[in-house]
Amino acid sequence: MTRDPVRLADLVARFGGELLGDPEVPIRRIATLRSAGSGDLSFVAHGRYRSELAATRAAAVIVPESERDATALPRIVCRDPYAYFARVAALLNPPPPVVPGIAATAVVSPAADVPPSASVGPGSVIEGGARLGADTAVGAGCFIGADASIGPGSRLHAHVTIYPRCALGARAIVHAGAVIGADGFGFAPVDGAWLKIPQTARVLIGDDVEIGANTTIDRGALDDTVIADGVKLDNQIQIGHGCRIGAHTAIAGCVGIAGSTTIGAHCMIGGAAMISGHLEIADRVVVGGGTWVTKSIAAPGTYLSVIPATGEREWRRTVALLRGLERMSDKIRELERRLAELERGR
Amino acid sequence: MTRDPVRLADLVARFGGELLGDPEVPIRRIATLRSAGSGDLSFVAHGRYRSELAATRAAAVIVPESERDATALPRIVCRDPYAYFARVAALLNPPPPVVPGIAATAVVSPAADVPPSASVGPGSVIEGGARLGADTAVGAGCFIGADASIGPGSRLHAHVTIYPRCALGARAIVHAGAVIGADGFGFAPVDGAWLKIPQTARVLIGDDVEIGANTTIDRGALDDTVIADGVKLDNQIQIGHGCRIGAHTAIAGCVGIAGSTTIGAHCMIGGAAMISGHLEIADRVVVGGGTWVTKSIAAPGTYLSVIPATGEREWRRTVALLRGLERMSDKIRELERRLAELERGR
Amino acid sequence: MTRDPVRLADLVARFGGELLGDPEVPIRRIATLRSAGSGDLSFVAHGRYRSELAATRAAAVIVPESERDATALPRIVCRDPYAYFARVAALLNPPPPVVPGIAATAVVSPAADVPPSASVGPGSVIEGGARLGADTAVGAGCFIGADASIGPGSRLHAHVTIYPRCALGARAIVHAGAVIGADGFGFAPVDGAWLKIPQTARVLIGDDVEIGANTTIDRGALDDTVIADGVKLDNQIQIGHGCRIGAHTAIAGCVGIAGSTTIGAHCMIGGAAMISGHLEIADRVVVGGGTWVTKSIAAPGTYLSVIPATGEREWRRTVALLRGLERMSDKIRELERRLAELERGR
Repeated sequence: MTRDPVRLADLVARFGGELLGDPEVPIRRIATLRSAGSGDLSFVAHGRYRSELAATRAAAVIVPESERDATALPRIVCRDPYAYFARVAALLNPPPPVVPGIAATAVVSPAADVPPSASVGPGSVIEGGARLGADTAVGAGCFIGADASIGPGSRLHAHVTIYPRCALGARAIVHAGAVIGADGFGFAPVDGAWLKIPQTARVLIGDDVEIGANTTIDRGALDDTVIADGVKLDNQIQIGHGCRIGAHTAIAGCVGIAGSTTIGAHCMIGGAAMISGHLEIADRVVVGGGTWVTKSIAAPGTYLSVIPATGEREWRRTVALLRGLERMSDKIRELERRLAELERGR
Repeated sequence: MTRDPVRLADLVARFGGELLGDPEVPIRRIATLRSAGSGDLSFVAHGRYRSELAATRAAAVIVPESERDATALPRIVCRDPYAYFARVAALLNPPPPVVPGIAATAVVSPAADVPPSASVGPGSVIEGGARLGADTAVGAGCFIGADASIGPGSRLHAHVTIYPRCALGARAIVHAGAVIGADGFGFAPVDGAWLKIPQTARVLIGDDVEIGANTTIDRGALDDTVIADGVKLDNQIQIGHGCRIGAHTAIAGCVGIAGSTTIGAHCMIGGAAMISGHLEIADRVVVGGGTWVTKSIAAPGTYLSVIPATGEREWRRTVALLRGLERMSDKIRELERRLAELERGR
Repeated sequence: MTRDPVRLADLVARFGGELLGDPEVPIRRIATLRSAGSGDLSFVAHGRYRSELAATRAAAVIVPESERDATALPRIVCRDPYAYFARVAALLNPPPPVVPGIAATAVVSPAADVPPSASVGPGSVIEGGARLGADTAVGAGCFIGADASIGPGSRLHAHVTIYPRCALGARAIVHAGAVIGADGFGFAPVDGAWLKIPQTARVLIGDDVEIGANTTIDRGALDDTVIADGVKLDNQIQIGHGCRIGAHTAIAGCVGIAGSTTIGAHCMIGGAAMISGHLEIADRVVVGGGTWVTKSIAAPGTYLSVIPATGEREWRRTVALLRGLERMSDKIRELERRLAELERGR
């Protein structure tokens, strides 16, 4: 998977930082401090990994200013080792090149627009009016519905479904099993049954968005579902119809967002958090994992509601006490009354 | 997507209601009050949207009796504007017609029963003994296992999996990535390992059921999993083996229902609610989003257990107090004892 | 689905136990006490099903020692009726035989290693360097990426995705829509945007692992994600990058496990439980359904944090009291102060 080795000096020339030690050390791979061996570049973000740094067999390390003297290994000293590591990792592990061409078993409508630089995998189906950008790679067994569009430089892994008329921006990465543009969950109750409300709007996705495996984003009923530039979505996320997710917001796995909710830019939503419908969440809000957001949030900050696990007996006792809170509250009032009486009588 | 325009008078002739204003207004589209423009019909369900109603640029609106004079626009006054809107939206946005025929790349067993009015998309696989109803559309890349059946007028979107012997009723809508009939999660512990219990029963689904994207419904071990008529399931729902869901129950996204649970008719289960196994839930029960149902529910009503998010500091304090409830309870008892002693001594 | 009938005597000869009654009774099927009829073998694990045992129309039953005289039906008395039932069910319901061969519409790289005993379903794609074990069945529409491997005797149902370089052991069962090896969710924050960290490691899965429908297991960033022998995963589970799951651990549906967490052997994780990242969970830990594990667990035992549902009014009162805990705590302190003063004054 990895390319020719790069010299430490090449990395510093490209990404900056201060080089201490032999500039000729060849780097083939990025690895953790624990698993690194010869040819590997590792990194340490915090002083708390100092013992692993002392024991590592890496060929070189990326360290923050605070750790510049914590090792004798060849090292790059920089402000943000994690970002530096990400850049080197990207350089050493470029995405596989797109091999242009349409697989023999793909079914591409003559009315679809597939540029010669694009790749369409075996068994994929591209309907009429759909458009792929330059250098876009569609994996095996994908479905791209009528009039949908995918921006240039995008990569769809296997078994991705894009419903008709949805649009993805440039450099999208969509993982296997993701479904973009299924009908939102909209029904009117009529005489004890549910009457389906046609979901006539689209999903519109900006540039540089990554969408995880088996994540689903529903199309809008009347107004589009909108995912802004730079949003990162993990696996198994469900985004309801008519939601709007602001730029560079990151959402961890298993999160559910009910319909018509707007989430600001630069938010971070923890795993399995759930956000009710029709809310407005401000920019730069952090929602903890498993937290339930049932009201709009106007101010940046961290919001929580999850209770950490404890041993069974203690937890059962806590639940019982929670059920008895009303009685506890009544008892306190009664104590206050009796005490006041005693105090008066003193 | 939309058809020829309809006149306001045509709508009233078809769906009832009282028409105020020009009956000739042509309607091309349904839209929200905010986004509507010329040719658009909008609706207002509650007085609380009165300011949006005043500002809308819709060509006409559907209003409840209470808002009959709240606008000068051409309008339809009716009892249930949301249901009226649903009906008009369905009229203006009919599902795409089914184009009969089997795609060249579909693999249909000669022992399958596919009527001439049905459509089978590219790459779909239909095994022997499977039966499709009239006018049924199977999207691209679906799999319909041996002896499975799909009722007439159904629509399977792309990448739907129906395991062998499962049955769907008439007018089913199944979204991409849904999996019907995978094995239930059944294992017997034997000598520290898990022995698989064959899941030999089926999934049986009634008429007019909609199933969301990436939703999974497991086949029964010994008794069938049964989904009654009119049930609506959102995305990413998991229904365990041997469950029974009553007619016209609606279940929002990310809900999990463990095995052998029976849910009544006309229930509403909020998003990400979880229901334990082997329970009985009565008809007309409403379970709030994120709520954990761990015991059977015998009476209709609304059931909850979710705690709304708050700011980080307040929440951490609440969790600490929750952990300290036992001590609080002890202190109250101690106070009661000391107070009683004082009272006796008075 | 079922084979020729087996005599009760054959079962006892094969699986042990004590036979009471006619040894010639032919068994065709396993069924529950309630649904069993002639030719059916049923089982009872606990005395609490005694009334169903009295009413069953089964041809024979498997009972524990405690119920040996609770019925006059032909019966097998054994130590663990549930395990016995599992064994008989497996005997009567063998998996469908693998029909060797590659479907005409499958796309198998000449550089893939597919043994003659393996089966590859219609539309499946197997890339170069991928290897299938003997007697392995790949269902319709699967994708097996470059250099991935599947052990002998495995079965992949329809629409399974195995990303490049991932490895499954022998006798794997993978249900429809499962995705093994998508990129972990790893990004470094750089100047207000997210820089993708290449996910260069693999998913390595042991022998006898079952993976449910639409479950996702991410590949590691630098260290592999590892699933040990005998692990059983239900549907819609998300396992983050770099996790390690110990042997014979069973995980119920909708569970999420964040990255780099290690779970021990013989654990049981209840449905929709969530486990934070970078934790260590000991062997033989039981995590209740819906529980949030936010810290490492060093000792075996059962851990919980979920609050059961109650009626809406009671729950709203409980939440209000929870919000008021701080005030309650303050009041208790105040009462203690005043009481101490009174006591001093006595």
